[in-house]
Amino acid sequence: MKNYSFVPFYKTVLTDGFWKDRQKLNADVSIPNVYKRFKETDRIDCLYPWWKRPLSHSDLFYDSDTAKWLEAAAYVLHANRADYPELEKSCDEVIELLKKRQQSNGYLNSYFQRRPFLPKFHSRPDHELYCAGHIMEAAVAYFQATGKDALLSVAEKYADHIRDRFMIKQNTAFSTPGHEEIELALFRMYEATGKEKYKELAEFFLNKRGTVKEKTYRTFYDAYDQHEIPVRELSSAEGHAVRAMYLYCGMADMARISGDDGMLSACKRLFDDACKKMYVTGGIGSDYNGECFTIPYDLPNRTAYSESCAAISFMMFCRRMLLLEKDGRYADVIERIMYNNFLSGVSLNGKAFFYENPLEICRTDLTRSRTVIKRPRLPQWQRQEVFKCSCCPPNINRTVASIGDYIFTENETETVLHQYVACESDSLRVETNYPIDGKIIVRGQGYGKNLFSVRVPAWCKDATLSLNGKKVAVFPEKGYVTLKVDPDFTLELTLDMNPFFIKTHPLCRENRNKVALQRGPVVYCLEEKDNGDIVPLAVVGSGPFTETENNLTPLPFIDVQGKELSAGATYYEGECDAKERTLRFIPYYAFGNRGESDMKVWVPLA
Amino acid sequence: MKNYSFVPFYKTVLTDGFWKDRQKLNADVSIPNVYKRFKETDRIDCLYPWWKRPLSHSDLFYDSDTAKWLEAAAYVLHANRADYPELEKSCDEVIELLKKRQQSNGYLNSYFQRRPFLPKFHSRPDHELYCAGHIMEAAVAYFQATGKDALLSVAEKYADHIRDRFMIKQNTAFSTPGHEEIELALFRMYEATGKEKYKELAEFFLNKRGTVKEKTYRTFYDAYDQHEIPVRELSSAEGHAVRAMYLYCGMADMARISGDDGMLSACKRLFDDACKKMYVTGGIGSDYNGECFTIPYDLPNRTAYSESCAAISFMMFCRRMLLLEKDGRYADVIERIMYNNFLSGVSLNGKAFFYENPLEICRTDLTRSRTVIKRPRLPQWQRQEVFKCSCCPPNINRTVASIGDYIFTENETETVLHQYVACESDSLRVETNYPIDGKIIVRGQGYGKNLFSVRVPAWCKDATLSLNGKKVAVFPEKGYVTLKVDPDFTLELTLDMNPFFIKTHPLCRENRNKVALQRGPVVYCLEEKDNGDIVPLAVVGSGPFTETENNLTPLPFIDVQGKELSAGATYYEGECDAKERTLRFIPYYAFGNRGESDMKVWVPLA
Repeated sequence: MKNYSFVPFYKTVLTDGFWKDRQKLNADVSIPNVYKRFKETDRIDCLYPWWKRPLSHSDLFYDSDTAKWLEAAAYVLHANRADYPELEKSCDEVIELLKKRQQSNGYLNSYFQRRPFLPKFHSRPDHELYCAGHIMEAAVAYFQATGKDALLSVAEKYADHIRDRFMIKQNTAFSTPGHEEIELALFRMYEATGKEKYKELAEFFLNKRGTVKEKTYRTFYDAYDQHEIPVRELSSAEGHAVRAMYLYCGMADMARISGDDGMLSACKRLFDDACKKMYVTGGIGSDYNGECFTIPYDLPNRTAYSESCAAISFMMFCRRMLLLEKDGRYADVIERIMYNNFLSGVSLNGKAFFYENPLEICRTDLTRSRTVIKRPRLPQWQRQEVFKCSCCPPNINRTVASIGDYIFTENETETVLHQYVACESDSLRVETNYPIDGKIIVRGQGYGKNLFSVRVPAWCKDATLSLNGKKVAVFPEKGYVTLKVDPDFTLELTLDMNPFFIKTHPLCRENRNKVALQRGPVVYCLEEKDNGDIVPLAVVGSGPFTETENNLTPLPFIDVQGKELSAGATYYEGECDAKERTLRFIPYYAFGNRGESDMKVWVPLA
Repeated sequence: MKNYSFVPFYKTVLTDGFWKDRQKLNADVSIPNVYKRFKETDRIDCLYPWWKRPLSHSDLFYDSDTAKWLEAAAYVLHANRADYPELEKSCDEVIELLKKRQQSNGYLNSYFQRRPFLPKFHSRPDHELYCAGHIMEAAVAYFQATGKDALLSVAEKYADHIRDRFMIKQNTAFSTPGHEEIELALFRMYEATGKEKYKELAEFFLNKRGTVKEKTYRTFYDAYDQHEIPVRELSSAEGHAVRAMYLYCGMADMARISGDDGMLSACKRLFDDACKKMYVTGGIGSDYNGECFTIPYDLPNRTAYSESCAAISFMMFCRRMLLLEKDGRYADVIERIMYNNFLSGVSLNGKAFFYENPLEICRTDLTRSRTVIKRPRLPQWQRQEVFKCSCCPPNINRTVASIGDYIFTENETETVLHQYVACESDSLRVETNYPIDGKIIVRGQGYGKNLFSVRVPAWCKDATLSLNGKKVAVFPEKGYVTLKVDPDFTLELTLDMNPFFIKTHPLCRENRNKVALQRGPVVYCLEEKDNGDIVPLAVVGSGPFTETENNLTPLPFIDVQGKELSAGATYYEGECDAKERTLRFIPYYAFGNRGESDMKVWVPLA
């Protein structure tokens, strides 16, 4: 196995363009605003011993929310510490609170420490290990960003305590986390500190999982949190999608770090299966009930759960798989998520977030019955600043801030370019306006390896490539073209960015005879705002496409020929009435930014 | 207004063919079996004063179940008394129990009489007036069938008591029925006895409805039981579908009997609206939550509620409208229901019943998530012998037994043939094998009117007509061809019975780019039993059609060219893989008679 390592975001400074703008908004607006809302909702103050308020269920997740925000802030500081002294001050204050709150034995959980009468690690569904994992991730990030080790010490002490209770003494009421995350965090601790004990604890949790009967959730089967069978035997992506993907991240880490081939095979099977359960936006977990995976191609649009965190966790898993295999399918999925389900999770002004990301909004779903008081359960149609369980906003914060992690992987002989983001590292510079246009220039200056690989996305039918001005034939192997390069080189990749219509596998009942519009990696949608009532609309399913600049997004709106259908009867033979008209598509990620509006990604063919 | 009266079933003896067979099965198997199950579930014994069992909510409906069964039995006796002495004995026993149970003041309700501590007519949702209405309908039917007036006396005494409490003293906790039905029953009592007071009470309830604030259902809005606005102002079919249609029946009765034009206009508007909320099978009430109407063209297939009783009540409303207007749309809807949603309600062996009639069964809906213990709410996929609230089985019983009511209407100058059923009356004989073939011969012998009208269904593109062997041009007016006839005449109508594909209005989101197969009035469906996995199947959308005789139904199975689709990826451009194959369609009403099987009416176009 010829592993790769990733080139971390702080070695690849984003220079300009699409993602640089996003990062600036994230650092200047989103992260401060999430902090403000967390303050207002007691997520910070709950760390004070004097803090009192009736406990609510959502308080369970508070430490993980805070930790993810800290992690996001750490990435901002890592890239640009001088510009954010206030942010660093806020972080240090929160870290001080965490440090003070930690018990002498290492235990740290704001929820359970407010319930001293209850034993710790007693209730598996109560997210203690999940919160602990996020504290560890934040600790590593903050240490790497600032060199300050206060939080890392807290995290290590807590990890040691967990190791003592779960692995050494085994005196806890359950054996494995009810919500995975700590496994990948422990591997991260291991890689940051070099301490074997964290790797061993991660392996312990992974090896144990599915081998013991756990006292756990009442409303879910064991597949819900993936403890039905030993993890190396998994082949179907099942259960709570975020839990599943965090687990798979840990498994992929173990495959790479511990050289565990059983884990690698399972990860490959799980990736293949998850791709059959993935929305065109990259969203996963189609069912709100359990926030879970269902069966292949079961992808309802209006009730799509498709949680922002699930999309992010799928990106994280794919990034880890890219360290194990140079296979463009992983990078293609990352790209699909990055520009669609991930970006849709945050409003264009950076202040508000989606937890769920539906693929269709039909507001009459809420008013279709004038008789029943209890309304159907549907996703929210407008982004919110904070949620009771507010996992998604800081998860988006930390991922935007570290999006540079997804650009390159490397090993001794080659660097691989996965995502086209304008950036520069020591000896490489990527110039691009992608995904606004399809031209990507990579310049090597004193590049120290013989090979350079560049991904050609599966969606792209026409790519041209030149090296030092000379055209190179494009025959990608598993999605990549690998070139022999000199220390100084100029590579130019041009991707055809003409819009195109795609279809879903015929086993997806909901999307039969419907198409979605895609331009590059960006999926488009119809909004009522531009089109009036979208229910009777249909597309012809081919061009021409007219692109229009607009004030909403740097990407063009796309106008295309369509029809507005009507009929004189409920049932009829032959053809219905059709009025020719133009349909206006906008990027999916931008929907819901101009007030409530019906929306759909999958549009019936005329 | 030139009203019609209907020619009741007992004046039009069914001779042979499709419906005669159904009636025999109904009388010999269904009605005895429903009685048996009602005995076993205490519906009869609960009328004994000594009967004890913890009360359950479903006991509320018991008297209406029993009464509807009695009404069905009465129709069997009316048509064929000599052959069913045992049935008459059972009826007389039940009637004796009802008579004994009736309080001296006339009150009669097995549920509330077991709760003597509770005041009567105190809780509007508790179905007392609904049960009373069904007792009245049964009483009229049994009196007309046998000449025995024991039950009619009970019903009259109860009606007088209700009139005294609701109309004279007005000392009840509510003013109008929580579940309509008594209005149409009171008009029926009026027409059977000639006593004005019953008509006045019916009018009282109808006039009062929607004009007073009622203390009523907690989980529903006032539209649920149609008391939001005065009934003459109604224009949208809203709320619980059975309640709505029983109300509209009462309104149509009032339009005809009391000459109330406001009621007539409302009924016409409500019919138009209901047609937009009607499945292709004639089913109505698409939402199980509230068993209610939603918005036009909101017709989900897999969760279709489409209750058997709702379909029957729509037939009843349409029959009443035909007495007010010779408009083929009413008869077309009756026919659509008769051969589809109505017939599907009972198994081919006559023993089991559907409450709900889905238009698609996809059994993975129940197993799609392996993680969530609480399963989604879906219709049952196999018919049951009895339900807790078992309104549908005896409703089907009584409707099959009196299906002859739907054949003709008449006035002084003409008789109108609405449904093609082999039968004979005094001076008319209909010979037909419909809907197996499309030939209908009507013979007049000493027919005493000048005009005879025959319906040409809207679904029929090619009808030929001859009178006494001479071809007549077919130019239907509002769905009917009216001919001047002699006392002796022979009319021959031939309807093109070639199968055809139909589509749904484009505002029906679920059926875009799908077709349903229809042959004559019979809607067809695909069953997994004949086709294997039906999810990947698609139809080309045109013939040729191959008809095959079979042991399941007298109607042919229909084979047609289709495709089985597959794809190598979740998302793809261009065309997917398609294997040509034959799809076998069976009549919708016969689905679910060969064990559990996936099924669908609306099939995607290839």
